Amino acid sequence: MKEIIAIIRPNAVRKTAEALSSVGFPAMTMCECFGRGKQKGYFALNMPDLVDLDKIREEGEALGLHLKYIPKRMISVVAEEADVPLVVGLIMKVNRTGRFGDGKIFVMPTEDAIRIRTGESGDIAIGN
Amino acid sequence: MKEIIAIIRPNAVRKTAEALSSVGFPAMTMCECFGRGKQKGYFALNMPDLVDLDKIREEGEALGLHLKYIPKRMISVVAEEADVPLVVGLIMKVNRTGRFGDGKIFVMPTEDAIRIRTGESGDIAIGN
Amino acid sequence: MKEIIAIIRPNAVRKTAEALSSVGFPAMTMCECFGRGKQKGYFALNMPDLVDLDKIREEGEALGLHLKYIPKRMISVVAEEADVPLVVGLIMKVNRTGRFGDGKIFVMPTEDAIRIRTGESGDIAIGN
Repeated sequence: MKEIIAIIRPNAVRKTAEALSSVGFPAMTMCECFGRGKQKGYFALNMPDLVDLDKIREEGEALGLHLKYIPKRMISVVAEEADVPLVVGLIMKVNRTGRFGDGKIFVMPTEDAIRIRTGESGDIAIGN
Repeated sequence: MKEIIAIIRPNAVRKTAEALSSVGFPAMTMCECFGRGKQKGYFALNMPDLVDLDKIREEGEALGLHLKYIPKRMISVVAEEADVPLVVGLIMKVNRTGRFGDGKIFVMPTEDAIRIRTGESGDIAIGN
Repeated sequence: MKEIIAIIRPNAVRKTAEALSSVGFPAMTMCECFGRGKQKGYFALNMPDLVDLDKIREEGEALGLHLKYIPKRMISVVAEEADVPLVVGLIMKVNRTGRFGDGKIFVMPTEDAIRIRTGESGDIAIGN
């Protein structure tokens, strides 16, 4: 059992959730957060088409821009190990634009899940 | 050492925290989040007593209701492995109503904990 | 690969992020949360210089103060295993005042990271 955590753009939550639901993963947790990657947040909103990292940093610093934390959403899906490639692949497909800010996905080991309503645990607790 | 993550109803935070504190787990982190389970959020607020999942989905879709993200709270408690059954059992006892929306609990492996104030690490850092 | 989660004071986010960035860890996720430790939140804002835990609890209860959840920030940095001592040490150095409320750090096993923009995974995905 694994937790797949995706840090994505706020406007990508709906399509990500719908895509996951359509292949059998309706359950998720979503949280507002802020993120930044190796571009340190510079120009993330101002010049979203720039892809040259050095140029982004250079122009950002020259202009005194310090937009260091970008609003993001964290979505968490807990899935059986065999389903991790499907979930990760789908999140990538829906969120990949090729521009800085597309986000990251992390795969975390998870020991157990319990559905409080029924007391079910393990794979049954994360199934439909 | 394990992290126990519980996704529960907002109005259950206080009693959950008090129950955990009363048995020796006063320390926790709490975060606002949104969740949905296999009922996809349909009727979660409108018809909380419905337990027939197919009926919930059918009526929700018929009515065009799309309440897809339910406000939840995430609480995180880090405990020694031997205490996991106690913490999980207490969270279940306090949060279980038998209706959709009771929430889920996840148990995550945790390698280390450090109390910043003292530099203590390991089990000492999560003890009282 | 490990996730280092730090629960710190809101006013310590900037200096923590700058310190991490200065040694090569510009990427992070930050989230608003609430926390409490073994002092149960008593007097955390009112008497920040008190360090006698029994006295804090006693005076807090005598005065009927119940500030049980302290606003915190959770920052998450994913790093190669070899870098964990550096990241943890830096977060401690920047956040340690010796008073209750300095926060905690947790180290979590992490199986994989994927940069959505490029599809890179593993250590490359968390590098600069």
